[in-house]
Amino acid sequence: MEFRIGELAERVGGKVVGDAERTVRGVATLARATPDDLSFVTNPRYRSAAESSRAAALLIAPGSGIEFANRIEVDHPYVALAEILELFHPPTRPRPGIAPNAWVAESAKLGRDVSIAPFATIDEDAELGDGVVVGAGAVVGAGSRVGASSELRPGVVLYAGTEVGERCILHSGVVLGGDGYGFATHEGKHRKVPQIGRVVVGDDVEIGANTTVDRAAFDETRIGSGSKIDNLVMVAHGVRLGDDCLLAGQAGIAGSTRVGDRVTFAGQAGAAGHLEIGSNTVVAAKTAVFKDVPPASFVAGIPATDHKEWKRTQVALKRLPELVRELRELRGRVAELERALSERTDPDDR
Amino acid sequence: MEFRIGELAERVGGKVVGDAERTVRGVATLARATPDDLSFVTNPRYRSAAESSRAAALLIAPGSGIEFANRIEVDHPYVALAEILELFHPPTRPRPGIAPNAWVAESAKLGRDVSIAPFATIDEDAELGDGVVVGAGAVVGAGSRVGASSELRPGVVLYAGTEVGERCILHSGVVLGGDGYGFATHEGKHRKVPQIGRVVVGDDVEIGANTTVDRAAFDETRIGSGSKIDNLVMVAHGVRLGDDCLLAGQAGIAGSTRVGDRVTFAGQAGAAGHLEIGSNTVVAAKTAVFKDVPPASFVAGIPATDHKEWKRTQVALKRLPELVRELRELRGRVAELERALSERTDPDDR
Amino acid sequence: MEFRIGELAERVGGKVVGDAERTVRGVATLARATPDDLSFVTNPRYRSAAESSRAAALLIAPGSGIEFANRIEVDHPYVALAEILELFHPPTRPRPGIAPNAWVAESAKLGRDVSIAPFATIDEDAELGDGVVVGAGAVVGAGSRVGASSELRPGVVLYAGTEVGERCILHSGVVLGGDGYGFATHEGKHRKVPQIGRVVVGDDVEIGANTTVDRAAFDETRIGSGSKIDNLVMVAHGVRLGDDCLLAGQAGIAGSTRVGDRVTFAGQAGAAGHLEIGSNTVVAAKTAVFKDVPPASFVAGIPATDHKEWKRTQVALKRLPELVRELRELRGRVAELERALSERTDPDDR
Repeated sequence: MEFRIGELAERVGGKVVGDAERTVRGVATLARATPDDLSFVTNPRYRSAAESSRAAALLIAPGSGIEFANRIEVDHPYVALAEILELFHPPTRPRPGIAPNAWVAESAKLGRDVSIAPFATIDEDAELGDGVVVGAGAVVGAGSRVGASSELRPGVVLYAGTEVGERCILHSGVVLGGDGYGFATHEGKHRKVPQIGRVVVGDDVEIGANTTVDRAAFDETRIGSGSKIDNLVMVAHGVRLGDDCLLAGQAGIAGSTRVGDRVTFAGQAGAAGHLEIGSNTVVAAKTAVFKDVPPASFVAGIPATDHKEWKRTQVALKRLPELVRELRELRGRVAELERALSERTDPDDR
Repeated sequence: MEFRIGELAERVGGKVVGDAERTVRGVATLARATPDDLSFVTNPRYRSAAESSRAAALLIAPGSGIEFANRIEVDHPYVALAEILELFHPPTRPRPGIAPNAWVAESAKLGRDVSIAPFATIDEDAELGDGVVVGAGAVVGAGSRVGASSELRPGVVLYAGTEVGERCILHSGVVLGGDGYGFATHEGKHRKVPQIGRVVVGDDVEIGANTTVDRAAFDETRIGSGSKIDNLVMVAHGVRLGDDCLLAGQAGIAGSTRVGDRVTFAGQAGAAGHLEIGSNTVVAAKTAVFKDVPPASFVAGIPATDHKEWKRTQVALKRLPELVRELRELRGRVAELERALSERTDPDDR
Repeated sequence: MEFRIGELAERVGGKVVGDAERTVRGVATLARATPDDLSFVTNPRYRSAAESSRAAALLIAPGSGIEFANRIEVDHPYVALAEILELFHPPTRPRPGIAPNAWVAESAKLGRDVSIAPFATIDEDAELGDGVVVGAGAVVGAGSRVGASSELRPGVVLYAGTEVGERCILHSGVVLGGDGYGFATHEGKHRKVPQIGRVVVGDDVEIGANTTVDRAAFDETRIGSGSKIDNLVMVAHGVRLGDDCLLAGQAGIAGSTRVGDRVTFAGQAGAAGHLEIGSNTVVAAKTAVFKDVPPASFVAGIPATDHKEWKRTQVALKRLPELVRELRELRGRVAELERALSERTDPDDR
C-alpha cells in the first residue's frame, strides 16, 4: 500500500509544503521512520527528534517552526494521524461465521455477518447485531444485546440483561453487569441486597482490558456514547457516566455518582458515591473526589480541591519544614523582644 | 407476583401506617416507582423525592418525619429492603446438569444438583458440593473444593488446592490461588520463592469481578466467613482477613497482614504488609496504612492517621499558603520591632 | 522426600552449626514447623518466634544472635530458602499433550512437549516453544510467540503479535497486547488512534493475575527480562520497562514512560506518561510520579519527591494544626509588643 503525500493531505484537509508527489508506504515514529514513511509531530518537545528524522514527510501543525523538507500541515495533526493510520491499517475483523466449538443457544438471535470464535457462549435470548465479533471464550449472558459492529475480545463477560451499543470495543477481561456491591449491615452481618438493575453502554464506547462495570441495584448503570475507558477501571452500580468521557487506567467511580459529559478522570483517580460531577471537568491523577464538583472544574488532591489551589498548597507544603524552623526562630526573637522591653520598662517603674 | 403491604410488613417485622390491604407488584426507586410499587427511604437526604413519589407505599424508619399515606415502618429499612427484594426476585440458578461441552475430570467429585456450564473445567480430584454452580469457562483447579450452594460466575479461576466455603458468590474474572509475589533478590536478580500455601475462603463470602487473592507462601491466605469483597481488589499472599469484613473497589492488602473482624477498607485504600489491623476498624478511601492499627480505629490519609487528626490537618493545610504569607509579614513586623527597640535603646546607652 | 541438614547446607553454600546428620522432610514457618521440618529466619523481628520453634533446624544468617540447636548459617537465607523449597516442591507441569477439546490452528507451530489444556485457543501462525504450558481457556493470538518453558495459566489472553520470552509465568487473567489508550480529541469527540505496535516480554518474567500490558501505538511496549510484576498492574502503551524491575500490586505506569533496570514500584504507586525513571529507583507505595526521576532515587508522595524530604514534610504536617495556633498566638504577642512600644514611644514624643 502506498499513498502520495498530496493524496494524504487532501484526505485530512491539510496543505502540502514540499513535494506532494512523493509517496509513503507507512507511518512511523520520528526515530524509527525510514525514507518510505510518513512521520508526525504532535508534541512540540519532539522538535529536535523531528529535525533529525529520516521520514519522507511530517504531519505537523502549521506555524510549528520546525524545519522539514516535506510537510503536511494540518490544524489537528493527531486527529489526522488517526485518519491516516486507518488508511494504512484498516481494522481487521475475523471472517464471519460461528466456530463449531462455540456454544450458541437456540433462542439467541444473530445478525448478519456475525463472527463467533471458539468456546464463546451466547446464552438464551441474547441478541447480536450485524457484524458483531465475539472473541474466544467470551460470554454473552442471557437476554443481553450487542449492537451492530461491536467487538467483544476474548474472555469478555456480559452478565444477563446487559446492553451494549453499536461500534463498541470491549477488551479482554471486561466484565459488564456483575452484581453491584450492595449489602445491608445489621449487627455486624452483611446481607446481600439483590441487584435487580443492569448495565447499558452507548454507542462508540471502548472499554479497556479487565475493567468492570457493575449492574445497578435498581434501574441502570450507564456508560454514555463516545466514552472511552482504559484498563482496570471500576465503575460501580448505579453510576451514570455521560457522553464522551475519558476514564484512564485504574480510575474508580463509586456507586450512584453521576458524571456529566466530556469528563476526564486521569489514572488512579477516584470518586466517592452519590456525587454529581459536572460536564467538562478534569480530575487529575490520584485525586479523590469526595464532594460534588461543578462543571468545567479541574480538581486535584486528596480530598479534591481546585487544581490551582492544590498547586499552591503543594508549593507551600514543600516549604513546611522550613516554616517550622522559621516559626521557632521567630518565637525566640519575640521572647527576646518581650524580655528586652520588660527590662527597659522595669527601671522606669522603680 | 403481588403482596399485600400488611403481609410484607409482617415478613420484615414492621408496622403498617395506612392501608395494609393495598397490594404491590414490585420494588422501585422513589423516582421510578409506579402506584403498583413499593419504594424505600434509606437515606434522609431523599426526603423531598420521597414526598413526591408515586409509590403505593414506602419502606421507612419510624420517626422519619416524612409524610406519606402508606408506610411500612421498620427499624432497619435497608435490611428489610433486602428481604423484600428477595421475595420479588428470588435468586435464579441455572438448571442442574453438566453441559456436554464442559470438561470434568473423572476423579472429580460432584455433589447433587450441580450445574456446570459450557467450557468449564473441573480438574482432577476437585470437589463441588451440592448445588454448586460453575459458570461458562470457569476453572476449578486440581484438588480444589467448593462448598454447597456456592456459585462461580463465568471465567472464575481457582488454582489447584483452593478451598471455598458454602453459599459464596465469586464474580467473573476472580482469580484465587495465583502464586504470591515472593522473590528473593540477590545481586539485582529476583529468584522465585515457591509459594506452597493455598487460599481458604469461608462461608457466605462474595468476591467482586476481577479481584485476585494469592496463595500463601506457606500455610494459608484466608478470607473470613461473611466478608464481602468488591471488584478489582488485591489480597496478597498470607493475608488473614477476618469475618464480616468489607473491602471496597480497588483496595489492596499486602502480604501477611492480619485484618480483624468487621473491618472496612473503602475504595482504593491500601495496607502494607506484615501489619495487624484491629477489628471494627474503618480505613477511609485512598488511605495508605503503613503501621499497625488498633481495634475500632477510623484512619485516613497517606500515611494513615486517626481520621479526626487527618481532618484537622486538611483544614490547616487549606490555610497553608495564607500561613506562609502571614509568617513572612510577621517576620517583617518583628524585624521592625527589633530595629525600633535597638534605636530606642542606643540613645540611652550613649 | 527427606534431606540431611548437611546436604542442604552444602547445596546452598551454608555452614551447619549443630547436627548435620539430622534429616528434615519439609519446610515450614517458625510457628508451624514440626520436629521434621526445616524453618527459617529472614527477618530479625521474628527472634522470639524462632527461639520457641519446634523445627529440626533453622536457615539463618550468621551472627544473628538467635540461639537454636541446629542451624544452617548462610549469607542470604531468603535466597537459600527459595533454593531448598524448590528441592522439596519441584515445579510441577501438566503432562505434555494437546487436550482434544482445545483449538489449535493448523498454521500454528508447536515445539516439543507442549501442554495445551481444554478450551485453549492457539490462533493462526502462533508459535509455542518447547515445553510451553497453556492453561484452560487461555488464548494465544495470531502470530504470537511464546518462548520455551513459559507457562500461561488459565484464562491468559495474548492479543495477536505478542512476544513472550522463555521461562515466563503469566498468571490467570493476564492480558497482553490490548489496544493502547490512544484517542485524538477534536471538538469534544474522541477518535481512536489505531495501535499498530505490539508487546514484547523478555525472559524469566512473571506477571501476576489480571495484570494488563497494552500494545504500543507504534513500535513496542517492552517488559525487560527478569522483571516481576504483581497482580492488577497496568502497563500502558509504549512503556519500556527495564530488566529485573519489580512492580507491586495495583501499580500503574502511563504511556511511553521509560523505566530503567532494577526499579521498584511499591503497591498502588503510579507514574505519569512520557517520563524517564532512572535505574535502581524505588517508588514508595501510593506515590504519584509526575516528573522524571534520576537513577537510584527513592521517592514518595503525591507528587513524588525525595523520600527523606517527604518524611520531613510528613513530620511537619503532623505539627501543622499546632503551627496554626502558635502563629496566631505569636501574632498576638507581636501586636502587644507593637502596642507597648508605641505607648512607650509616644510620651517621649510629647
